[in-house]
Amino acid sequence: MIDAALHSGRGLRPCVFEVFARRLPAGRRFGVVAGQGRLLDALADFRFDEDDLAWLARERVVSETTLEWLADYRFAGSITGYREGEVYVPGSPLLTVTGTFAEAVVLETLVLSTLNYDSAVASAAARMVAASDGRPLAEMGSRRTSEASAVAAARAAHIAGFDASSNLEAGRRWGVPTMGTAAHSFTLLHDSEEDAFRAQVETLGTGTTLLIDTFDVERGVETAVRVAGRELGAVRLDSGDLPSLVREVRAQLDSLGATGTRITVTSDLTEHTIAGLRGAPVDSFGVGTSVVTGSGAPAAGLVYKLVAHQAPEGGDWQPVAKTSPGKVSRGGTKRGERLIDGRGRAVAEHVIIDDTRDGRPDGGATGSGVGSEGEPSIRSLTVPLVTDGEADARWMGPEGVQLARAHCAAAVAELPAEAMRLGDGDPALPTVYK
Amino acid sequence: MIDAALHSGRGLRPCVFEVFARRLPAGRRFGVVAGQGRLLDALADFRFDEDDLAWLARERVVSETTLEWLADYRFAGSITGYREGEVYVPGSPLLTVTGTFAEAVVLETLVLSTLNYDSAVASAAARMVAASDGRPLAEMGSRRTSEASAVAAARAAHIAGFDASSNLEAGRRWGVPTMGTAAHSFTLLHDSEEDAFRAQVETLGTGTTLLIDTFDVERGVETAVRVAGRELGAVRLDSGDLPSLVREVRAQLDSLGATGTRITVTSDLTEHTIAGLRGAPVDSFGVGTSVVTGSGAPAAGLVYKLVAHQAPEGGDWQPVAKTSPGKVSRGGTKRGERLIDGRGRAVAEHVIIDDTRDGRPDGGATGSGVGSEGEPSIRSLTVPLVTDGEADARWMGPEGVQLARAHCAAAVAELPAEAMRLGDGDPALPTVYK
Repeated sequence: MIDAALHSGRGLRPCVFEVFARRLPAGRRFGVVAGQGRLLDALADFRFDEDDLAWLARERVVSETTLEWLADYRFAGSITGYREGEVYVPGSPLLTVTGTFAEAVVLETLVLSTLNYDSAVASAAARMVAASDGRPLAEMGSRRTSEASAVAAARAAHIAGFDASSNLEAGRRWGVPTMGTAAHSFTLLHDSEEDAFRAQVETLGTGTTLLIDTFDVERGVETAVRVAGRELGAVRLDSGDLPSLVREVRAQLDSLGATGTRITVTSDLTEHTIAGLRGAPVDSFGVGTSVVTGSGAPAAGLVYKLVAHQAPEGGDWQPVAKTSPGKVSRGGTKRGERLIDGRGRAVAEHVIIDDTRDGRPDGGATGSGVGSEGEPSIRSLTVPLVTDGEADARWMGPEGVQLARAHCAAAVAELPAEAMRLGDGDPALPTVYK
Repeated sequence: MIDAALHSGRGLRPCVFEVFARRLPAGRRFGVVAGQGRLLDALADFRFDEDDLAWLARERVVSETTLEWLADYRFAGSITGYREGEVYVPGSPLLTVTGTFAEAVVLETLVLSTLNYDSAVASAAARMVAASDGRPLAEMGSRRTSEASAVAAARAAHIAGFDASSNLEAGRRWGVPTMGTAAHSFTLLHDSEEDAFRAQVETLGTGTTLLIDTFDVERGVETAVRVAGRELGAVRLDSGDLPSLVREVRAQLDSLGATGTRITVTSDLTEHTIAGLRGAPVDSFGVGTSVVTGSGAPAAGLVYKLVAHQAPEGGDWQPVAKTSPGKVSRGGTKRGERLIDGRGRAVAEHVIIDDTRDGRPDGGATGSGVGSEGEPSIRSLTVPLVTDGEADARWMGPEGVQLARAHCAAAVAELPAEAMRLGDGDPALPTVYK
């Protein structure tokens, strides 16, 4: 595509691409966009080195003209978009990439891979956080997604409100708090459950979490308290009918005097099973497969579409969109605003289409301030991420993750209560094009 | 876990871990295991460098003893297992890892991440290949999974029978054949569809594939043939009701004399929509989201369980298994054999449990040969992958991918016809423990 565009003379035409979702996954009320921090990081290294070019030349993937263009490639355009951790609905203009056609289209796969996966995880994680009633959640799903995705998943889940992850690389690379766990193999390694518990307590102290369901839960609890004493930190359950089982375990722990020992549950949890444990004496959750695979929606369905280009003679920007039935898009450069009512509740997503401008935010002229109390106000959603090739360092690294996490909590808290319903229904906010 | 095991003195106990699936994803008749070649590659680099150790020390993740052990880590054990591309059913002993507890358990996440993701893709891809009735399939889903997973997905889909991928890195790294495509943005970049088609044909020749549904399909076909002539290679449809639309497009192409122009379809295809195009004049398929996300089963559900350890005094191997209700496992070292009937059809999966041995195959003593014609025979499924820390290079790199691809085709062809049913049902082969 780049090859043909460079040859036709259109490859260097200034263009605007937009990332948005046509719809939310079935049953979802809102999405949480994530991946921007990873994207900015990857963008800094997005070059084609000699090995890359030699392979492309040998395989005759592209022509000499394109090889030369790729050799000098460095994204020099601009990207604006929603902040990482922001809530979105269908049509939210999540990212706007402005540059020449070739320099922007070559990023399509990188942009979409990063945002689709990370947003799928963050969107699922946000529902689990809402269902947990404030009890802490740990991401433990590294083994259920590919090894590099696992790091991204831990990061995205943390942004959406998970407290910790079992993925140590996510701790090192992105500052995600990490935690360990003992598996059934640890118990089976020892000659008895008691030996295993004793080994764990001796090394990690009585504050550790003992896994009590390798053989028989009732005996496991009894052994755990006998070995660690009433100061035992926690017990973990990874099987069984949790709503009834946790009550029994709680009663047994209390009867043994271990009233401060917490109960953590794992076992293929989803937002629905977490919600089913409302009211049960569970102290924390460990979630694996469902969070790292987006809980039924493993890709967020974000697309990357050309929405405007500059007229050949320069000057005006011209909106473009495909018109074939079923996949109609809206052309034109867009930015997002959220309408907030007088009680601080989000009530609508405004998508402002500016047909004549490139993708730069207009400096907040439309107001990002909060109205006086009781008055509706507008929250501006679009911020600069990359300006003329320079990424804004605020959104990057472990600090970017913490900013995104705080922003996500605030954005979700602003949503109307019905947004937290887990069942089928409409998006939490109507999308209004302006 | 490793920390406590090293302290308890049990960390260096010889152990056998097994990878298997308790069940197949809902509606599946068989799985295709993939990822072994990537795993052997990753294993060669699986070390803890100074930066890793410094971070672990600074964050107090593990004790000094464990840091020293990690500093010297190099997997020196053995791995046997099913060949990459092999068919599997519940209980198939896909991988057997023999080593000390610590050296084998530290690989758990790497092994499972790799095999779970790659097998999810390969298993979905194999169903799509079966549904395609021999017409070629291209993997085009890089943007629907995280950027590193995308390379693994292209590789796994190719092993399961996809012909090509749009992921160039998969071409470079693993020898997967690659192909490009023009998106709607390419058409919208130009001042008319005709200009876009002309640009593409001038650069890529008349053998190229023109995307005809940006505006109006009928006009798109007319323009495509006018610009490229009757020698136009192919047209691509990415929207609409495909079964009816492809017939109309075929008739229009034929009426314009472009009888040799092929039709390729994309548009959120799954194995079900591909099957729904049986009998329709489609020449090839491009599949995105569904194949890279495992078509509803984004993780294969493989687990890594301790199944045996050596008695403290050395000598005999002791089978171990958890016994808590709902997740009972079978202890003991296992190998797999497939029972083939006299007509060359697979009829059962034999899982042979050897309680007393470690995980090494016994050199094929149980027979891997084919019986005389008309007689049932046994196909041995377990081969050496890593022996005393040395990986078998046969399974690695682009050559390993081609071996796996050929093996997958043969293993799938051996299955009974009902294994190809897309609807719900039992596994294609019963699992018989021996």
